[in-house]
Amino acid sequence: MITEGHIDFFFKPESIALIGASPNPEKLSCTILESLLKMGFQGKIYPVNPGYQEIRGLKCYPAPGEITDKIDIAIFAVPASTVLEILNGPVENIKGAIIVSSGFREIGPEGKEMEARLKEILEEKGIRAMGPNCLGIYDTASKVDTFFISSDKVERPARDGISVLTQSGSFAAMIMDEMANEGAGVARVVSYGNKVDVDESDCLEFLAGDEATKAVALYIESVGNGRRFLAAASRCVQKKPVVALKVGKQEPGARAASSHTGAISGRYEAYEAAFRKAGIIEVASYEELKDACKVLNRFPLVRGKRVLIITDGGGIGISIADACEEAGLRVPDLSRKTVNKLIKKLPAFASVRNPVDLTGSVKDEHYVAALQEAFGDEYDLTIVSLLWGPPLLSKEVAKKIKDFANNCEKPVLICSPGGKYSREMASDFTVTGMPVFFTPDSVVRAAVVLCGGKR
Amino acid sequence: MITEGHIDFFFKPESIALIGASPNPEKLSCTILESLLKMGFQGKIYPVNPGYQEIRGLKCYPAPGEITDKIDIAIFAVPASTVLEILNGPVENIKGAIIVSSGFREIGPEGKEMEARLKEILEEKGIRAMGPNCLGIYDTASKVDTFFISSDKVERPARDGISVLTQSGSFAAMIMDEMANEGAGVARVVSYGNKVDVDESDCLEFLAGDEATKAVALYIESVGNGRRFLAAASRCVQKKPVVALKVGKQEPGARAASSHTGAISGRYEAYEAAFRKAGIIEVASYEELKDACKVLNRFPLVRGKRVLIITDGGGIGISIADACEEAGLRVPDLSRKTVNKLIKKLPAFASVRNPVDLTGSVKDEHYVAALQEAFGDEYDLTIVSLLWGPPLLSKEVAKKIKDFANNCEKPVLICSPGGKYSREMASDFTVTGMPVFFTPDSVVRAAVVLCGGKR
Repeated sequence: MITEGHIDFFFKPESIALIGASPNPEKLSCTILESLLKMGFQGKIYPVNPGYQEIRGLKCYPAPGEITDKIDIAIFAVPASTVLEILNGPVENIKGAIIVSSGFREIGPEGKEMEARLKEILEEKGIRAMGPNCLGIYDTASKVDTFFISSDKVERPARDGISVLTQSGSFAAMIMDEMANEGAGVARVVSYGNKVDVDESDCLEFLAGDEATKAVALYIESVGNGRRFLAAASRCVQKKPVVALKVGKQEPGARAASSHTGAISGRYEAYEAAFRKAGIIEVASYEELKDACKVLNRFPLVRGKRVLIITDGGGIGISIADACEEAGLRVPDLSRKTVNKLIKKLPAFASVRNPVDLTGSVKDEHYVAALQEAFGDEYDLTIVSLLWGPPLLSKEVAKKIKDFANNCEKPVLICSPGGKYSREMASDFTVTGMPVFFTPDSVVRAAVVLCGGKR
Repeated sequence: MITEGHIDFFFKPESIALIGASPNPEKLSCTILESLLKMGFQGKIYPVNPGYQEIRGLKCYPAPGEITDKIDIAIFAVPASTVLEILNGPVENIKGAIIVSSGFREIGPEGKEMEARLKEILEEKGIRAMGPNCLGIYDTASKVDTFFISSDKVERPARDGISVLTQSGSFAAMIMDEMANEGAGVARVVSYGNKVDVDESDCLEFLAGDEATKAVALYIESVGNGRRFLAAASRCVQKKPVVALKVGKQEPGARAASSHTGAISGRYEAYEAAFRKAGIIEVASYEELKDACKVLNRFPLVRGKRVLIITDGGGIGISIADACEEAGLRVPDLSRKTVNKLIKKLPAFASVRNPVDLTGSVKDEHYVAALQEAFGDEYDLTIVSLLWGPPLLSKEVAKKIKDFANNCEKPVLICSPGGKYSREMASDFTVTGMPVFFTPDSVVRAAVVLCGGKR
């Protein structure tokens, strides 16, 4: 039934209808229109509401059938029962629907029945749909934002390469807000809620061939059709890295998932096996997934697990080395040859081993020298952990390290712990797409992902 | 030799001499004087430098022996060799020294010899000393700040109950900066570097009886005298919680530690056993230690492990439930009785189980109702995880939850993920000493500490 590329129009829409559009700021639809306009969507926007002639300068239609254009995405921001009513009317011009409304399977038997009817109508009319009980799409490539939470409350990330697929809308909002706050971007974020139709497998099939997407992150409560997921995920993994967080692993979480999106979690072991078989990198927690998103925006996976650590804070270097080894990465010491080269370039106070500790007397050029001399064939990636306290370290060092990284085939991960001053100093990295990790733990989580995960 | 209370004067000084004082902003000593003045130290400050008559309006002395007052703390901010010279002169009035200078054991054989001589002189003259190669003391109770990193670069936390002991100065700076940035405070922070004399055991002995200290956090690269440490830690644990992070567990980290503070790490298993024997709560990483510091500022340990989760974000509730169970905590479902009570107070859209999911339609009073009805004898602590997207949730909810928490004997932990808006909304908690955790992972780490750690 479903063919590859079938849901492309969700990600390359030329026209969007907003059903239930309203100028009343207390309505979700008002925020959605605001989000769409703010995002700068270049196609047609058709507000639909029989109560209005015009909203925000856009002509308002009484019903979607009155729009003479085809509609790539019809956003339904009306009560559950109204969704069904409208879909029962003339909707031949609608290709795809995003049903943000709640009140379906997640509320119990009555809602479940409603959702079954919704599914029937959608199939009968040949309309592909995301949701219900979802936020829909935030897409930096197509400039679509259907989220009903304003950007004052949840900041929108800039454009970058990671696409995020999630059942949970709150999860989508949380990771977007935090990514933006940490200077990281995204490609496309899809929140598909109860998955009456479009699910992770449909999205993976699209994203596999999507040029805007460099890597995919999945938040999974449940997967409906395991066989199809395995096939879609395997195909996607051949093109780009896929990471996944499975929640509802433990009984209480599974219990909550079933009332959240009406999902039946199933046995965690089955997911674990499927991830392994498909080549998906599994992460264990929200923080790991966020770190994965940040690092995969910029760097491809590496083949080995040998980490070079360069720092000006001895204690942090040690913490990073410990965390690497505990996670199954390796922190091999410098070769005799490298030590000899480094000794010539670094002052006597520096500790010339792995971790290389440039100490509080560090100058900008010592970081560059350490990278140039030590980050050779012996290592697969390097973690550069900067503390900004040292008096001779300047903001210029970020540019110098970036220049090195831009000319380097292997990943250079930046760790910059601390508060306001550190974030300001490190902002030179993020503005040009170098992810910055703010704790030793975080940068190691990112390194583990690049090395293919914990197994 | 060493008796309890012997190092009290480091934490209740009446007079501080700054040896090597200078008005030159490029000198570390200039920053130290700035730190002391900014902190508002109420005792006497004596700059010492033969080259000046006066610095920052304070009379400057050519040598410590010229000061007629006793000196509780003499901060040495001069080169290593000068430290020895001065100590060989008249220093009878010095009780304690903080030697921030590097150039001792951490630089190799020559420095090691220098440190041995330093130790001899200190013993001969009966001067207790912290350092060398350290930052010294940041103390919100005695208003002492000997850190040579300016508060522009490393923010200083406000006063609270956790005291932090660390060999690594960079670690002290990092955790202080981040704690301040997250609205968390500290009692006393001691960075003792190479530990020529004062070490974790001395400090633990003092902190055990210290009224300003509610709990103690240790960053350990190595412990010199294991037997003494065990005794001091055990005594402290009887009075207040002690958490510890051991670094240099793995070979590369241990290698780095030995060149960092000249420490020999020893076998990790021995530390693990000692921590267990002393009743110290061991944490596995920097982030865990930071979360422990934040939570122990406010809450005592609890006896059980039963966690109630209340949220308005389904996906986050599930993640928290998973993380709790994985860490050995329990997330038992609500009793029939509690469900019946809650159903009367919460609207139909709420999911009345554990996690309680108030959904995006939540109002302030639903949080209060959930706490009042569900957080009874069945649970030992509760995690309240707020997403601020829901339109009917107001900033007032923080005050209401705080009021509940202030009248509650058991811990109420706040999780508030997200960026700028969330931090602003959650700031009402932190200003009154309620710690806020910014990710599901983080709040669970804090809960694990309150439940006595992972074992």
